[in-house]
Amino acid sequence: MLVMPKKKSASKRVTKTSASPLIFADTQKSADHLYVGGFSVPDAFISFKKGRKWYALLNQLEFARGLKESSFDEVLSLEVWLEMAREKFEKAKVGYPELVATIADEFEIETFKVPADFPSSLAFKMLELGLKVDVCDGSIFPAREVKTEEELGFIREGNRCSSAGIRAAEKAIRQSVVKKGKLYLDGKVLTSEKLRSLIEVACLEAGSVSSGTIAAGGDQACDPHCEGYGPLRANELIIVDVFPRVSKTGYHGDMTRTFLKGKASDAQKALVDAVFKAQQDAIKAIKTGVNGKAIHGGVVDTFTELGYETTRGENGAEGFFHGTGHGLGLEVHEAPRVSIVSNKLKRNAVVTVEPGLYYPGLGGCRIEDVVAVRDDGAELLSSYHYRWQIR
Amino acid sequence: MLVMPKKKSASKRVTKTSASPLIFADTQKSADHLYVGGFSVPDAFISFKKGRKWYALLNQLEFARGLKESSFDEVLSLEVWLEMAREKFEKAKVGYPELVATIADEFEIETFKVPADFPSSLAFKMLELGLKVDVCDGSIFPAREVKTEEELGFIREGNRCSSAGIRAAEKAIRQSVVKKGKLYLDGKVLTSEKLRSLIEVACLEAGSVSSGTIAAGGDQACDPHCEGYGPLRANELIIVDVFPRVSKTGYHGDMTRTFLKGKASDAQKALVDAVFKAQQDAIKAIKTGVNGKAIHGGVVDTFTELGYETTRGENGAEGFFHGTGHGLGLEVHEAPRVSIVSNKLKRNAVVTVEPGLYYPGLGGCRIEDVVAVRDDGAELLSSYHYRWQIR
Repeated sequence: MLVMPKKKSASKRVTKTSASPLIFADTQKSADHLYVGGFSVPDAFISFKKGRKWYALLNQLEFARGLKESSFDEVLSLEVWLEMAREKFEKAKVGYPELVATIADEFEIETFKVPADFPSSLAFKMLELGLKVDVCDGSIFPAREVKTEEELGFIREGNRCSSAGIRAAEKAIRQSVVKKGKLYLDGKVLTSEKLRSLIEVACLEAGSVSSGTIAAGGDQACDPHCEGYGPLRANELIIVDVFPRVSKTGYHGDMTRTFLKGKASDAQKALVDAVFKAQQDAIKAIKTGVNGKAIHGGVVDTFTELGYETTRGENGAEGFFHGTGHGLGLEVHEAPRVSIVSNKLKRNAVVTVEPGLYYPGLGGCRIEDVVAVRDDGAELLSSYHYRWQIR
Repeated sequence: MLVMPKKKSASKRVTKTSASPLIFADTQKSADHLYVGGFSVPDAFISFKKGRKWYALLNQLEFARGLKESSFDEVLSLEVWLEMAREKFEKAKVGYPELVATIADEFEIETFKVPADFPSSLAFKMLELGLKVDVCDGSIFPAREVKTEEELGFIREGNRCSSAGIRAAEKAIRQSVVKKGKLYLDGKVLTSEKLRSLIEVACLEAGSVSSGTIAAGGDQACDPHCEGYGPLRANELIIVDVFPRVSKTGYHGDMTRTFLKGKASDAQKALVDAVFKAQQDAIKAIKTGVNGKAIHGGVVDTFTELGYETTRGENGAEGFFHGTGHGLGLEVHEAPRVSIVSNKLKRNAVVTVEPGLYYPGLGGCRIEDVVAVRDDGAELLSSYHYRWQIR
């Protein structure tokens, strides 16, 4: 399907209330869908709101579970509605566009409001069928940025899982012995892969699934998203970043600690001290209404004052070259950001605070906690000590 | 942004070669992006193809890793290109739409081909900027449906992980003892949650992350996607469905076995026999060019002949009410389907074969293996025995 630009723009704003929210996604890819439906569905399905009710269209496979487990107000049978669509369109074969058009007809909906990530294919076909589509800039639920007390509890639980993972990593590093510069645990070389496996098992046992876990040492850790591979070494900084998803709720934790086995050099000590100071100062500066850009700017200033430069070369950057933090909830990265593109932090938003410094040759250090934005300051939703040198 | 239907359709087909593929997604939500880039990026980024080269635009955080780990032909700096977009549009603040327009300009691209799940928000804004968008019906890489020998190896590895999970479950059920109808392992009630945890730890140790794992007994298993909760009981069918993602490659395994601890009734035995027969017959019938609809129809016929009716009631369905199988690869559910909506199976497609029967009161049974479609028949990519009664 090829869509051509129009001669003049047909877009305009409508009053929000006139549009019915519509989602078409599975709940793994769409946090919006998990948020409104409250249960996991592995294949894309349709849900929409009309008046005060959220409706889900579920196929036979999911229907009974939808009735029992979901928080939708009404669960409709996909098969029944496909039959209605076939009748309406007088076609033997209909798809989701015809289904949505049939819903629009029966529920008297003229305009659908969809999230930014709503699939283009369906959106364009809806237009062809004469429906109007109001596309949000982000989530269909801006309210997701502001957490309820219950959600804050879920995120605390996520960080309890993160802590369990970090504790497992610290224990393994502590119990390891150094031979010819490498760490050995129970007689075997302690690799990033092994450390990650120990972290992930600890997260599982705490009730969460951790994937993408980072356990990277030395120069590898200077790529902040490098997961790490091969043997871990003594006297080098090891970044451990754990962001598990609690299986029961779908909410995440996200914490980072940096460890070193052996003896730290003065340069390593200074690096960790700088990151710790920047992180603690940032946490102290956070409260309702403060601009995330200012928090990020404070971190940048601290590093600059302490002499840590950020430069960008042909093969990558060094110094501090990521945001100070990001929103956390059903997604690991969600609104708001704490970076150069931030706005004012809202009451009960949840953000990570995770400055880092990365210099190949010296190594990388990142320290990350999670806070809730409160009127009188940041409330820590994560808790783990900051001792990093392990003999 | 509100988009109104046009008076007459402006869509038409163009020759495929004239459109440059474009993706905007993170690699967790977009298997297409992982497929082409070969490395994990947790935030949405842009990549596109011009001529024979795939280009990725990565920010400072991912740039160095993109150079080292990705399979893109060229990695461009997001910051540099944002600066170019600011100049081109003479605006202090630009976003992805302006970035794509700048790329179109510099690379002389008129039309972008995007996958069905390309975000609507960006697609509509591209149109407003005068770009043409050719939306695919599914993946931007139809070739993903047909696997290379290397990919088949990755999926075999995924099923080795699935087997490790199922083995852990079988062992726990075997080692458990029955007290007052409930299973006890090491003195504690064996719950679905505990069984799932044992499965997921085994998967982790085998090199994969399993989430959404199903370990459901009795009537719970009659909702095929119910993960299961609470104590497991003797003399009831327990469905164990394990579909882990291999951490190193991103490819999946997907296997299901049904177990019973204690003594099976004649009705339970007949149910399992029926599912086993349907599954084995379906596997035998699969080869290049056979229509998946026929395979599915064979399963339906087998169940009907054996007297297993499928009915749909107000609270859900019973009998056999899901597809016989689905494609497997970087996604757990991908093309092709083996169901009423299937087409001819292509050589080296990979599909699951997983008929099931579900009757509240009696319980559910599903048996699932994974096969590669070959010219001379189905080649099993999974291997685990079918003994299901555990004393």
